[in-house]
Order: sequence, then structure tokens, then C-alpha cells
Amino acid sequence: MRLLRIGPPGEERPCAMGPGSVVRDLSAWVPDWTGAALDPDVLRELGPRLEREAGALPAVDPDAERLGPPVRPGGHLLSIGLNYRMHAAEAGLDLPDEPIVSSKAPTTLVGPYDDLLLPPGGEKTDWEVELAVVIGRRAQYLPDPAAALAHVAGYATANDVSERSWLLERGGQWVKGKSFESFSPLGPWLVTPDEAGDPQRLRLTCRVNGRLMQDGSTADMVHDVAHLVWYLSQFMVLHPGDVVLTGTPGGVALGRPDQPFLRSGDVVEAEVAGLGAHRQLCRAAVPVKTAL
Amino acid sequence: MRLLRIGPPGEERPCAMGPGSVVRDLSAWVPDWTGAALDPDVLRELGPRLEREAGALPAVDPDAERLGPPVRPGGHLLSIGLNYRMHAAEAGLDLPDEPIVSSKAPTTLVGPYDDLLLPPGGEKTDWEVELAVVIGRRAQYLPDPAAALAHVAGYATANDVSERSWLLERGGQWVKGKSFESFSPLGPWLVTPDEAGDPQRLRLTCRVNGRLMQDGSTADMVHDVAHLVWYLSQFMVLHPGDVVLTGTPGGVALGRPDQPFLRSGDVVEAEVAGLGAHRQLCRAAVPVKTAL
Repeated sequence: MRLLRIGPPGEERPCAMGPGSVVRDLSAWVPDWTGAALDPDVLRELGPRLEREAGALPAVDPDAERLGPPVRPGGHLLSIGLNYRMHAAEAGLDLPDEPIVSSKAPTTLVGPYDDLLLPPGGEKTDWEVELAVVIGRRAQYLPDPAAALAHVAGYATANDVSERSWLLERGGQWVKGKSFESFSPLGPWLVTPDEAGDPQRLRLTCRVNGRLMQDGSTADMVHDVAHLVWYLSQFMVLHPGDVVLTGTPGGVALGRPDQPFLRSGDVVEAEVAGLGAHRQLCRAAVPVKTAL
Repeated sequence: MRLLRIGPPGEERPCAMGPGSVVRDLSAWVPDWTGAALDPDVLRELGPRLEREAGALPAVDPDAERLGPPVRPGGHLLSIGLNYRMHAAEAGLDLPDEPIVSSKAPTTLVGPYDDLLLPPGGEKTDWEVELAVVIGRRAQYLPDPAAALAHVAGYATANDVSERSWLLERGGQWVKGKSFESFSPLGPWLVTPDEAGDPQRLRLTCRVNGRLMQDGSTADMVHDVAHLVWYLSQFMVLHPGDVVLTGTPGGVALGRPDQPFLRSGDVVEAEVAGLGAHRQLCRAAVPVKTAL
């Protein structure tokens, strides 16, 4: 099943792709794609019901409206660092013994075609196509990685955008370079595990202005999805709606000789095979003075 | 005005202390202490209304029920590191030129008298009494620190509990040592700025089993509250309900010769003068296997 959220920012309605690839508005069935609605058992029962009863739900044209992130922002948004062999090599860093965990402001989650806002003064904004894992069920102290995937609601394409200058040159922790507005495009869909297939056999690509910059496979992960979810559950309670960005393969701007960081007017297209593609137009964020 | 949330975890009702120090249930007026309800202008108007109309609202006995965190968890939970001169000295570290920003899982926010759960295998769980700042209004690219405090809903006593072994010895980012369940007790009240007074003249204390371990003043901060809110607004959008933990003064277990990290049965009492006191009983977290 493919889940979507459609509507203006903050007013998205929960939708899903039904029979005949027609997108249906599921507002009558679920409040939003968050919390208990993401439980894997609930989603498993929803599929057949959608097959049977889709005709009773309003059809939505996803090309005529904005797509939001396919899960409601507000959960914990985690980002795993250096989780691909190729990316660690280009960064000149050793493979980590344990997953490197950082976080992003939850409200950085935006839709798959929303503009990417380049922060004022930021000269090193970089792309990172990633497989996003959305948690569907509370997980804490899981006994082993084999128990992990039962807690996953689904998978989505993400771009874990990072401003390298603030990430690396301003002291402290990475959250500072990863939390700018619009820095976590997600979607178009949240794809349930039955349809996404083996999460360790997915090709990831990222193009900038049509040029193929990243081309990797989740088979190259240092710590696989099951290991990451198990590992994180030792350090925190994972809740439905939490999102884990699982690391990026090689090919980011930072690792290239010419370091072609993003500039206004650039177009970034990230895709995880089977999970759909993003398309962001980069433009300068306009510092709006907030009213006193 | 003093705002509270009272009820079982996840079912707290928004309350406030009214005339005669009687706590009133404000559920009829506001959905919860989150979002637009935290706007400083809205809170300013609420005070006089509560004075006039409190009698129409149900009285609540705060000693007869559980207190939750005084703001609904779900915003971004940020933690500032090394922000007191005394704490930096005991850690043997230079004062940071810029604020050091890390984050905690939003769901670590718990009530002021909830138990503190020591993680299994954690040998270095440490206290950190801190002034918490709750954001009341969207803030982005604030022009200067003078514009910052108008975006603050209020202040509260926090304990930014940290597991030092995982924070320092397991690689990567601090979020790993700060996100365990129950690690951010907050409250008892959220105190509006008019009542809290100057945020840079507040005494902070922390006692463990009755022994005074921390005794500092917010006057000792390296970067003051206005600077922190202004600074953070350059890196991310701050939203109503976001919580900033502003650093801890000296006296944590890590900085003491005997390193008396917390053990099951210990009692931790943190207080910021005028904002109220916590009291946590430490006990071992019981790893509950989550159902498959």
C-alpha cells in the first residue's frame, strides 16, 4: 500500500493509492498518518478494506494539489551518519563500530516537491538521498535485530539535506547543520513493507540539474535497517511516527573534487527505487522578520 | 501565571493556578498547553480572565493526581551544553565561542514527580538542573537577541538527565546519551515571564539524597537566554511548544572526585527559585519486551 498526505502545509489529509492506482482521501477512516494509524497490523487490515470499499471514498488528483510529507511531522527525526561504505570512504573516515546517531528538527519534514530553502549565509548546502524508515509501533529494548522490522510502518524516499559549514565548522553537534526549514523532503509515498520488499536491496539515486551524483544500493549499508531499529531501541523509546534516515551512499558535494554545493536555481531529484522520486527547486530562504 | 498539566501520562488536562492559589482545569478554554495556546499575547489575556472567571472552572487538587510536564511533549527538545562557566571549568573544557546545541527525544519530557528510570547497563546516569525556556511564538532569523524574549511563553525547572557513558564513550552524537525514557523531568509549572522575573537572576539547586550537589545562578551563563533563542532561530524555525534546556551549572557527578552517579533508590531534587521543585525517585528501568 502507498500512503500519502495531500493538502497545504499543516492541513494535509491522509490518502492512499487504491485500486486502479486512484488516490483516495481516507479522512473518513483515519485522523492522519500518525500514531495508532501507523500500526503495522492496522495497515495490513486497511489494504483489503481499501480494495473493497475505495469507491465510497473521495478520489483525489495528486497532480492537482500539493503533496505533504507522507507522515505527520512531530515525531523524533533521527539521522544516521556514515552508514554506507562508499560514503565513509569519500569522507576519509573509518567505518563506525556503532551507528552514529544525530537528529533534525521534526518540522524540517516537508513534501517531495516543496522548494529547498538555502539558508542565508550558507555556502555548503549538500544533498543526501536516503532510505527513510517510519516507525509504526512502540519499540523499546528490543531483544535482537530480528525483532525490529515488525515495528516498521513503511519506507519512503528522503533527502537528508545538510549545511556542511554549520555541521562541521560551528562547534558542537550536527543538529545545527541539519535543522533548517525544508531540509528533510520526504515522499511522495510511505510504502508498506509488503510492497517495498527487502529494504537491503534498493537502489538510491540523486541527480542535480540532471547529472547523476549519487548511485548506490542499500546493500552497501554498514548497519542494516533491522540493526538500526534494534540499536536505537536500546537508547530511546521509538514511537509511531518517528522517522529514521538511514544514511547516504557516496557522491555528495562534500566528497567531490569541485564541491558543487547547491545554489539557487538548482534542481535536486532523489529517488529510492520503488519508493518514488522527489524534485526540489533550490531557492534562497528569505529571512522574514517575525512580528514582535 | 503558573500553568500545569494534570492527569495520567498522555491524558493530562491543561490547568492553571488561579486566585487564592486554587488550581483550575482550563480544558473548557484551551485544548492543551501547546501550539497557539502558548502565544505570549494569548497568555497575557488569559491571566485577567482567569482572575475574573476562575469560579466557573473546576478546581483540581494537584496533590491528589499526577502532574505531567507543563507543556505537551512533541516539540523540538534542545539542550545547550557547557553554558555555565563553573560547569565548563569542572569538565576541564574551554568556554565555547558559540552555543553548543544537542537534542533529546521529545518524548523524554515527563512530570516533575515521575520516577527516573535508570537504563539497563547504564553506570553513569547524571543529574543536570537547568532553566527550561518554552517557546510561545514562531521564531526564525530573529534580527538580534533583543527581539528574542518576546517569543518566550515561559520558564520551568528541568533536569537534563544524561547517561555519561553513552554520551561520551559510544561514538557519535550526544543524543544517544540523552534520550532515554524519563530523562527530561519538567515542571511542576510553566511560569509566564511576568511572574518568573529576570531569567538571568535565578538560583538553581540540585540535591541528591538531601545533599546539596549543585548551587548556581543563571547569572553565570556563558550565553544568556535571549542570546540562545536568537542564535537558535538562525539555524532552525522555533515553534510554540519547543523547549530549550539552557545548560547546567557545576556540581554534576561527572565533575566530582568520587563520581557518585545515580543508583536505584536515590532521590533527586532539582529546583529553580520561583519556578518550583522536582523530586524523582531513581529506579531501574525494566526492559519490557514489546509484543511482536
